[in-house]
Amino acid sequence: MHSSHRIVATYRLAPLPHLEGERGEPEPRALAIARESTLETPEGVAPPSIEAALLGRVETLAPEEPTGGWEGSGIHESHETPYRAVISHAPEILDGGLPQLLNVIYGNISLLPGVRLVDLHLPDRVLDQYPGPGLGIRGLRDLVQGHGRPLVAAALKPVGLAPEPLAELASAFARAGMDVIKDDHSLVDQGFAPFRERVRAVVDAVRRVNEGRSDGQTAYFANVTGPAEELLQKAEFAARTGAHGILISPGLVGLDAMAMLARRGPGLPIMSHPSGADVGPDRTTGVAPHIHFGLLHRLAGADTVVYVNAGGRFAWSLETCQEVNRRLRATLGSLRPSLPCPAGGVNRTDAPMWFETYGADTLLLIGGSLLKEADVEGAARVLVEQARVSSPGTGTG
Amino acid sequence: MHSSHRIVATYRLAPLPHLEGERGEPEPRALAIARESTLETPEGVAPPSIEAALLGRVETLAPEEPTGGWEGSGIHESHETPYRAVISHAPEILDGGLPQLLNVIYGNISLLPGVRLVDLHLPDRVLDQYPGPGLGIRGLRDLVQGHGRPLVAAALKPVGLAPEPLAELASAFARAGMDVIKDDHSLVDQGFAPFRERVRAVVDAVRRVNEGRSDGQTAYFANVTGPAEELLQKAEFAARTGAHGILISPGLVGLDAMAMLARRGPGLPIMSHPSGADVGPDRTTGVAPHIHFGLLHRLAGADTVVYVNAGGRFAWSLETCQEVNRRLRATLGSLRPSLPCPAGGVNRTDAPMWFETYGADTLLLIGGSLLKEADVEGAARVLVEQARVSSPGTGTG
Repeated sequence: MHSSHRIVATYRLAPLPHLEGERGEPEPRALAIARESTLETPEGVAPPSIEAALLGRVETLAPEEPTGGWEGSGIHESHETPYRAVISHAPEILDGGLPQLLNVIYGNISLLPGVRLVDLHLPDRVLDQYPGPGLGIRGLRDLVQGHGRPLVAAALKPVGLAPEPLAELASAFARAGMDVIKDDHSLVDQGFAPFRERVRAVVDAVRRVNEGRSDGQTAYFANVTGPAEELLQKAEFAARTGAHGILISPGLVGLDAMAMLARRGPGLPIMSHPSGADVGPDRTTGVAPHIHFGLLHRLAGADTVVYVNAGGRFAWSLETCQEVNRRLRATLGSLRPSLPCPAGGVNRTDAPMWFETYGADTLLLIGGSLLKEADVEGAARVLVEQARVSSPGTGTG
Repeated sequence: MHSSHRIVATYRLAPLPHLEGERGEPEPRALAIARESTLETPEGVAPPSIEAALLGRVETLAPEEPTGGWEGSGIHESHETPYRAVISHAPEILDGGLPQLLNVIYGNISLLPGVRLVDLHLPDRVLDQYPGPGLGIRGLRDLVQGHGRPLVAAALKPVGLAPEPLAELASAFARAGMDVIKDDHSLVDQGFAPFRERVRAVVDAVRRVNEGRSDGQTAYFANVTGPAEELLQKAEFAARTGAHGILISPGLVGLDAMAMLARRGPGLPIMSHPSGADVGPDRTTGVAPHIHFGLLHRLAGADTVVYVNAGGRFAWSLETCQEVNRRLRATLGSLRPSLPCPAGGVNRTDAPMWFETYGADTLLLIGGSLLKEADVEGAARVLVEQARVSSPGTGTG
């Protein structure tokens, strides 16, 4: 169908019955996408050699199969059939940077109606330009000394708490044996818990507990999301102070800002948070979640990728979540796999079911469901125990 | 209705007839948005003082008026009535950074189905935290010595051209008297036209023409979009070399990366490009274009904001474009106004109509429609003359 040394993007074209003339027709739309993503000039303007070398190619265009898989049926269409357009690009259109890759796969066309990026193949020579996870699943397991079982995480929140109560909470989670503790993504650098004070306090609390343990250690991921010129400093401060990892929301700071930390940062593992990602499984535009979280976050260096779990507050389907998981763990050039981190309203009592459903290579993040218990530490201890006795599927560690 | 010293975000809630139970009901959805955007913990978890101080407040919730304005009727709903939820936030939830503002107004809730940010009020004390345009409309007019009339811009493209032909094109546009020349947003740092070589060549070409003119000068905006750690260097190189402004695509690098250049960069005026913005007037989720381009780009320091014009390749409505224009020019605390820059398939022969429709405070960007002419310079000269004889509305200069 296409040469595997090209970038191959698959778009779902939702029916546009309200558009007049050929603008709503699949073939002109596919050709327009291929041109818009590359030369962005009318036919005949670019020299023939450039048209031949750099214009995107429509490899295939076909109506979507009625049973065409889990990304098949949106909720908005009824009148007509959606199409799938497979468009390939020469790697020479890139410049080695992530922004230009985003530009080619979903740049100007992100402003078009009814165009959704649903699949993406990147050849090895393109994959090699991006950092990927520094530790990956195996490295994260080594960090917390948790092998052959699902890992569990808890969140420090709510925003508004001072460093001391946040540190006390961290201490309780660490005593319970949680594998990972993360700052709430809304804990940034507000006056009630300034970044440096918060990180120092939580690191101290977690270190004291870890020193007394022989069965693993709790890793603390400090949220460094903030102004662009402070990201590197914040990551370096976190590393210097003794945090085990950093949390960042690429939807708020830009995907390449996270990749910059992977390229130039102090080498702490990265947890990506979905805030501001502006994607969802029910949409007819945007980047499909399994590409956004399952591929782009991994490409940009996330060792573990937080996404919104099925059955939680966000109404995402199990199929979407499973596909995110599959992508994060699958072979992808020489990039390390990322650890899927389902979150967002996961009920602590459902944890064993999720371990079974998602398998061992999962970091299950339980937030509010632990915090609303009178005995937070006791509830966390139960969760940790459930993860330790669980042995679903086969892990990589 | 609400205190003007709070952040006030208005969301459009699309009907969700496929969701069971109260999850699809307007009131639980509005309350969930207010909580998700702030404390993100179940009721009762946060101390009462924090709930009182930081939980978002649902100010009003009402069905959308059937004739409720130009952002009123999406194309996807038919079964039920959309609602408008007005939710306010305490400024203390911010930390002075743009990422946290984005997190509060459209962070986690960007992952929900059918929630669209359609209006945003920011109090002066919040506006004062962000750079806004360094030059604004008046400063851009002074730069090109073009007052009391619409300004015109052309693009250097396609990607694939070497620095020399790009410089020749720039020379032709400058001889024609174009106010602004910009790199195509896809010209980044590829091998066929590396950033520094391209900027040097174009700057030299434009300077030579400008030196011989007495009727104004052509300003060249160099595209600095690229890896995060190179943005500042690229902007500084552009300034040192003699470019008049920089072009950046915040949808590809992050909105705060642009704001960082406004805060810390060399002081060149900024043109923002919409690639990767992932917004459109026909959607039921995301940030409405008049907020994304009309407010957030201005807040983040864009002196002129490229957006996709009605009647072009992108099927946006005239009402959307007029509302983007209105927001960019309107009073906004002490921030300077930004110059609207409609683009994306504008036909050069329609220019006089657009001048009349949009008024003098407009930078009309004509790309392919000029480039496909046999006599590009002659066609550009006609456009420049049309802008000079035009005197629609009243300008700020």
